[in-house]
Amino acid sequence: MARFLKKTTKSRGLPPGTLVFIGTRKMEQTRLRMIDYNESSIVERELTDISECAANIPDNTVTWINVDGLHNPEPIEKIGQLFGLDPLMLEDIMDSSQRPKVDEYDNCVFMIMKMLRIDEATKRIYAEQLSVAIGKNFLITFQEQVGDVFEPVRERLRNNRKRIRSSGPDYLAYALLDTVTENYIRITEALGTQVEEMDNYLLNNPGKTVPAQINRYKQEFNYLRRCVRPAYEALLKIPKLESGLIKKHTLPYYDDLDEMLVKAAEGIDTYRDMLSDQFNLYHTTVSSKMNDIMKVLTIFAAIFIPLTFIAGVYGTNFDHVPELHYKYSYFIMLSVMFVIAAGMVVYFRKNKWF
Amino acid sequence: MARFLKKTTKSRGLPPGTLVFIGTRKMEQTRLRMIDYNESSIVERELTDISECAANIPDNTVTWINVDGLHNPEPIEKIGQLFGLDPLMLEDIMDSSQRPKVDEYDNCVFMIMKMLRIDEATKRIYAEQLSVAIGKNFLITFQEQVGDVFEPVRERLRNNRKRIRSSGPDYLAYALLDTVTENYIRITEALGTQVEEMDNYLLNNPGKTVPAQINRYKQEFNYLRRCVRPAYEALLKIPKLESGLIKKHTLPYYDDLDEMLVKAAEGIDTYRDMLSDQFNLYHTTVSSKMNDIMKVLTIFAAIFIPLTFIAGVYGTNFDHVPELHYKYSYFIMLSVMFVIAAGMVVYFRKNKWF
Amino acid sequence: MARFLKKTTKSRGLPPGTLVFIGTRKMEQTRLRMIDYNESSIVERELTDISECAANIPDNTVTWINVDGLHNPEPIEKIGQLFGLDPLMLEDIMDSSQRPKVDEYDNCVFMIMKMLRIDEATKRIYAEQLSVAIGKNFLITFQEQVGDVFEPVRERLRNNRKRIRSSGPDYLAYALLDTVTENYIRITEALGTQVEEMDNYLLNNPGKTVPAQINRYKQEFNYLRRCVRPAYEALLKIPKLESGLIKKHTLPYYDDLDEMLVKAAEGIDTYRDMLSDQFNLYHTTVSSKMNDIMKVLTIFAAIFIPLTFIAGVYGTNFDHVPELHYKYSYFIMLSVMFVIAAGMVVYFRKNKWF
Amino acid sequence: MARFLKKTTKSRGLPPGTLVFIGTRKMEQTRLRMIDYNESSIVERELTDISECAANIPDNTVTWINVDGLHNPEPIEKIGQLFGLDPLMLEDIMDSSQRPKVDEYDNCVFMIMKMLRIDEATKRIYAEQLSVAIGKNFLITFQEQVGDVFEPVRERLRNNRKRIRSSGPDYLAYALLDTVTENYIRITEALGTQVEEMDNYLLNNPGKTVPAQINRYKQEFNYLRRCVRPAYEALLKIPKLESGLIKKHTLPYYDDLDEMLVKAAEGIDTYRDMLSDQFNLYHTTVSSKMNDIMKVLTIFAAIFIPLTFIAGVYGTNFDHVPELHYKYSYFIMLSVMFVIAAGMVVYFRKNKWF
Amino acid sequence: MARFLKKTTKSRGLPPGTLVFIGTRKMEQTRLRMIDYNESSIVERELTDISECAANIPDNTVTWINVDGLHNPEPIEKIGQLFGLDPLMLEDIMDSSQRPKVDEYDNCVFMIMKMLRIDEATKRIYAEQLSVAIGKNFLITFQEQVGDVFEPVRERLRNNRKRIRSSGPDYLAYALLDTVTENYIRITEALGTQVEEMDNYLLNNPGKTVPAQINRYKQEFNYLRRCVRPAYEALLKIPKLESGLIKKHTLPYYDDLDEMLVKAAEGIDTYRDMLSDQFNLYHTTVSSKMNDIMKVLTIFAAIFIPLTFIAGVYGTNFDHVPELHYKYSYFIMLSVMFVIAAGMVVYFRKNKWF
Repeated sequence: MARFLKKTTKSRGLPPGTLVFIGTRKMEQTRLRMIDYNESSIVERELTDISECAANIPDNTVTWINVDGLHNPEPIEKIGQLFGLDPLMLEDIMDSSQRPKVDEYDNCVFMIMKMLRIDEATKRIYAEQLSVAIGKNFLITFQEQVGDVFEPVRERLRNNRKRIRSSGPDYLAYALLDTVTENYIRITEALGTQVEEMDNYLLNNPGKTVPAQINRYKQEFNYLRRCVRPAYEALLKIPKLESGLIKKHTLPYYDDLDEMLVKAAEGIDTYRDMLSDQFNLYHTTVSSKMNDIMKVLTIFAAIFIPLTFIAGVYGTNFDHVPELHYKYSYFIMLSVMFVIAAGMVVYFRKNKWF
Repeated sequence: MARFLKKTTKSRGLPPGTLVFIGTRKMEQTRLRMIDYNESSIVERELTDISECAANIPDNTVTWINVDGLHNPEPIEKIGQLFGLDPLMLEDIMDSSQRPKVDEYDNCVFMIMKMLRIDEATKRIYAEQLSVAIGKNFLITFQEQVGDVFEPVRERLRNNRKRIRSSGPDYLAYALLDTVTENYIRITEALGTQVEEMDNYLLNNPGKTVPAQINRYKQEFNYLRRCVRPAYEALLKIPKLESGLIKKHTLPYYDDLDEMLVKAAEGIDTYRDMLSDQFNLYHTTVSSKMNDIMKVLTIFAAIFIPLTFIAGVYGTNFDHVPELHYKYSYFIMLSVMFVIAAGMVVYFRKNKWF
Repeated sequence: MARFLKKTTKSRGLPPGTLVFIGTRKMEQTRLRMIDYNESSIVERELTDISECAANIPDNTVTWINVDGLHNPEPIEKIGQLFGLDPLMLEDIMDSSQRPKVDEYDNCVFMIMKMLRIDEATKRIYAEQLSVAIGKNFLITFQEQVGDVFEPVRERLRNNRKRIRSSGPDYLAYALLDTVTENYIRITEALGTQVEEMDNYLLNNPGKTVPAQINRYKQEFNYLRRCVRPAYEALLKIPKLESGLIKKHTLPYYDDLDEMLVKAAEGIDTYRDMLSDQFNLYHTTVSSKMNDIMKVLTIFAAIFIPLTFIAGVYGTNFDHVPELHYKYSYFIMLSVMFVIAAGMVVYFRKNKWF
Repeated sequence: MARFLKKTTKSRGLPPGTLVFIGTRKMEQTRLRMIDYNESSIVERELTDISECAANIPDNTVTWINVDGLHNPEPIEKIGQLFGLDPLMLEDIMDSSQRPKVDEYDNCVFMIMKMLRIDEATKRIYAEQLSVAIGKNFLITFQEQVGDVFEPVRERLRNNRKRIRSSGPDYLAYALLDTVTENYIRITEALGTQVEEMDNYLLNNPGKTVPAQINRYKQEFNYLRRCVRPAYEALLKIPKLESGLIKKHTLPYYDDLDEMLVKAAEGIDTYRDMLSDQFNLYHTTVSSKMNDIMKVLTIFAAIFIPLTFIAGVYGTNFDHVPELHYKYSYFIMLSVMFVIAAGMVVYFRKNKWF
Repeated sequence: MARFLKKTTKSRGLPPGTLVFIGTRKMEQTRLRMIDYNESSIVERELTDISECAANIPDNTVTWINVDGLHNPEPIEKIGQLFGLDPLMLEDIMDSSQRPKVDEYDNCVFMIMKMLRIDEATKRIYAEQLSVAIGKNFLITFQEQVGDVFEPVRERLRNNRKRIRSSGPDYLAYALLDTVTENYIRITEALGTQVEEMDNYLLNNPGKTVPAQINRYKQEFNYLRRCVRPAYEALLKIPKLESGLIKKHTLPYYDDLDEMLVKAAEGIDTYRDMLSDQFNLYHTTVSSKMNDIMKVLTIFAAIFIPLTFIAGVYGTNFDHVPELHYKYSYFIMLSVMFVIAAGMVVYFRKNKWF
């Protein structure tokens, strides 16, 4: 399967705005969770149907609805109707191959980000799409599957940490994106540590798997980069939004996200460069090792080939080979051989061949 | 034939505005199809001559004329006169070597895009030029040959899907471009899947055709890129057009096209990088395999060359070689040889040569 | 001679504005040709001195003066005085090492472009400088030598093609530049076809001249690029000129030139990339061929070296070598040798060494 | 540990604004030093608690408080309360993994820079974070550990150098940043000198450690670059600040910092390029040396292999080998061998093989 | 010594504005030359002290003071006081490690450029800093040592060439910078010619010094680039200066400088690319030559190794080797050997191995 470009299974020619799920189905049923809070009270509920929510959204609270599971268009459509979300936006929510982006609609700010998870066994990164709709007094988040990454934020809400309970949905969205963004840095750092560790055994006895390993890390960083870069670019639009749904005093927090994304992007680029350097270094180390081996062959061959030739000459069965009959000629031959060998060793040494 | 730069066969010095077909003739006869629709009615007709159309273009419908076949200047000229199209525009329509672009004329918005088709056998991409003229109540599309890629859009028109029938030619143009653009992603993905699959056998026993294959994929991606990038740049001009022919509420749909083009372009770049990495990996794998083979030679040669030399010495026919006459000297020689060989094996092992 | 940076022979410290010819003298005498036309009449004359022209420039015609040969400052100076051209401009005209550019003066728009010619024998590109001064009712063009590239334009003037005869000098300049620009595409395509053809024999038995050939093509494309890129950048200034000498309805034609230049530049970049890829491919093909040869050596050597050693052992002349006297020991030795050889062949096959 | 991306140890989900130290604890206790000066007087004091300072900050003096040690949130929090610093800013101060930046707050301009130190033994660069808060009449600096790099500035304050005593905290901040920035150039130059020196022994007998060494320098320059580039970008914001805390007549001094940073960045880029070139040169030198060795083997082998074969033929024990019995055949064989050897030497020489 | 980043010897912590010479002292004594001219008169004098000048600067003349030698702060300080130059500017003048730049002060425009000189013997480029202060009616130039590069300009002043004598100091500055800039092109061209010449012997028998040579040229071009690029960027600021010290009718001349700098920069980039290509070509040529040699070894070895083995077999001393006793077996062996050898030659030929 093409990992770097998810297949869009939408059948050709379907009119835009048709809700079709694009991606891999990751859970059985859609799960709806609602948290309704203001400074003084907080209500947390699991909904079986979104209509339960419709009845009791008070105006003076912030309502956060979290949807896990995107394969089923029905509840998403209902939420869209309830909160007056644009059909194009709903289509984007269901298409898990979207790029990170920030769009502005009449009644909400819509963001798409990628939540990343590193598989400990394969060291591969997996992405899940997070869609966030920030309204005047509601925040709706859509995830592909149930995850616990937002649990600390929920905890903060429950514990009545002042700022989060007294701020609007824009601040809550920031708090969620903060955990997502922090995770980028965590993953970059996790992969980066491994890359930096490669340096150690690269110079000694690099295994044959090193190029493949480097290639794999490169792909992971490429993948990471494709999540981080567009997210960074998308967030740059936040201060320019005109709807006022992101309040002015929340903007510095979003700036903070931006800085974290730049930090992650820079880290990624640095590690990509490092991997390229390591690839070259590996190449050089291996061919330097090979050279050492070749030198040994050369020296052995160059020394013994002429000697063997001499022995061969006196192994011939000619009737008349005068040297064969002198008493000391065997020893003379050995001496000559020794001189030749020694001479070559000296010559090679002088030329710093070994 | 130069694939990356089509020959402009226009004879030198012809005045601009002269209608000359540039490209490969792909069909026998020009075919004209007309669909005339509004919210309540739809008429579909094949025209033998454009003059048939002239008589009955009502003001309150959208008229879509599709021209298949560009080699014949006559019908194109007639259409130009009928709809008041600029001569420069007609010249561009007939020149199938144009780059994707968006131009604004007095009475219409003119776009050129490339429709791509991947040949399943050769895995080569072929491009066909699509010219689109969006007027106030008409849309004229020009293709090099008859194709069925727009059939789903026609189907939607016939089935009275509300939005498409109640919107103007700008929305219809979007619907057509949407199928073209979606195809870019499909093709990128198709080639990309093959590139990602190469990773698997690259590390084991890469065949000799791999570099040529990588090169070919690279060329396809280059070709693809040359269709996608300018299309992306061209579409960026859409929101800045002043004529109002692209209505404001249609703009988000064009934004959507832009996003798809960025997605395709990013995918292309990723795969191009991946191909470069694979090329290096192939190189390393091959030379690593070669190194293994060379090592075997070296070790065999280094061990046996001195031993053969010793045997050679005792094969000489000197009259006086004292060692030859001791009873156990043959066995001593064998033992010495064994010790030498073993010593070298140990030495090579210690140096991790095999 | 430095081909990529022409020597400026202007002696140091000469005050600017001094007319000094910089370049290689390409013809004997300066040749002046004048065409004076309007919608109804056309006069074509060869002038021996520019003063002949001075007498009869009517106001209601367009006067095109073409100067072939730049080595002689005198006629150029006279033309400058006659038409009130700026001294800096005259200096630029005579300096054939100028970069393509567009400048605006009080009474004219001044352009420098490179006319390219590909030498069929050496496949090298040669450039000639074309300077164009567009005035209110005159056009003056300066070439380094007599060429026939503008003949089709003259023909169109003579044949009273409507647009060209009824338009001003700005359109005439466009018509000339059009032939120049079209030639860029022609040359890019000519070289490009050769580059694409190289692909065919690159994979089979690439000759040793390939790297040099690739290098040469690269240099030609670099040369081409240095003519096309600045020309493109220069033409971007045309719509921003304030003098009104380039009329508004002529601007779309200049846009057309721009598009052709972009097309040429893109083509050049594509072919440069392709050449780099081909260089790598050549390298890989050659070293893959070398590997094949080395493998044969390795296999031959690895198989026969131990066998030869065994034969050597039994060729020794020791008095007591028990094996020598068994009846079947010769055949046993042969069998052992066969087994060793076969074993190694099997081993190598299993490791896919051949 | 990931050197290029410091681990952020902040536990997930902590609300922003919580003061948590991120980094390596570098000293035991936080140390507070205060210098209070104006044109006529200067008071220098070590504080045990920031509250000592609170009592006596006169309005007509500049108060510089330097904090060494960031691991303890308590004094930093107190300073924040005393001077009314933003919580987000305090968080940044304690997070030693911040990128260089310039932020503007209501009552102060906040800068983060990296102070670099090169370890003489390992030639590695170590960075320490410097945070600077420039207020109306105060300057607060935060360092990770006690350092003496600011001592010369203190000396200038004590010696009543006119400008520094009569200017505000913006000039003092400049003076401090000047020493930091100058250090970037010093370090770039120190590493650069070593890189330039490598050129000398690269062509003669480059050791095997060269690639690793080049790699290490590259990493140091990468590290340096990641401190210098963002600092440069950050400082570009200084003239656009609106608070007026950086006075207009101090701006040229900050321009000067910018120029130094550009100089450092350019130096870094040049040395990085040089290292790449050296890597290639090393590669070429080594493989050229290897080629020399291989040539010797080839020549020895090519000459002696046929000769040894001839000797082998006459070493066979066939009953009927006519040549064996001619009187001079041994000498004829020797002569033939000599001719063969000589012929090959001549052939190789002619082909310039050695 | 670090050539690409001159050591700044200013001791740490010195207050900015302190005049300290940074660079290599290139001459014994500071030399002051003054030319005072207007359209009608010209006075040329060598000053022993700048105070001599102070007395007689008339208002209606242009006073050009040229200072050779920067190591001595005293005269520079005096000039600064006399003409009211900014202390920061004086500091820059004395720091010969400055980057090219253009700054605007209250009473003058200040430029720093690098004057280049190519050492004929070592082919190395040496730079000298030129500082230019353009005031209302004065021009002050500072050079590191006495040079004759401005002599032609002085000659033009003496010879009363109209424009230079009737224009202000801005035009005089242009005339000086023109000689400096022209020299960039001269040097680029000189190095470039050598680079282009390398092409000729690169394909035949490239010596071992080629990589080092290429590397050296690359460094020179890098050095050149670091002088040209910032100069180009700096000059772009000239038309935006607000002081009016550079008069409007002089601006086209400065544009001309810009064009020359672009030309030089483009030339440099082209030659840098060419050097990279040559490096690759060298590599390929060398390894292709090596391959040829290796092939000979392979062919010799592959042919003779099996033959020698056969001879070895019949050289064994077994009692019972039936073949040894047939009458023609020696000749049969020779024939078999010949057939084997011939077969291999045919096989290798067929595979195009030689």
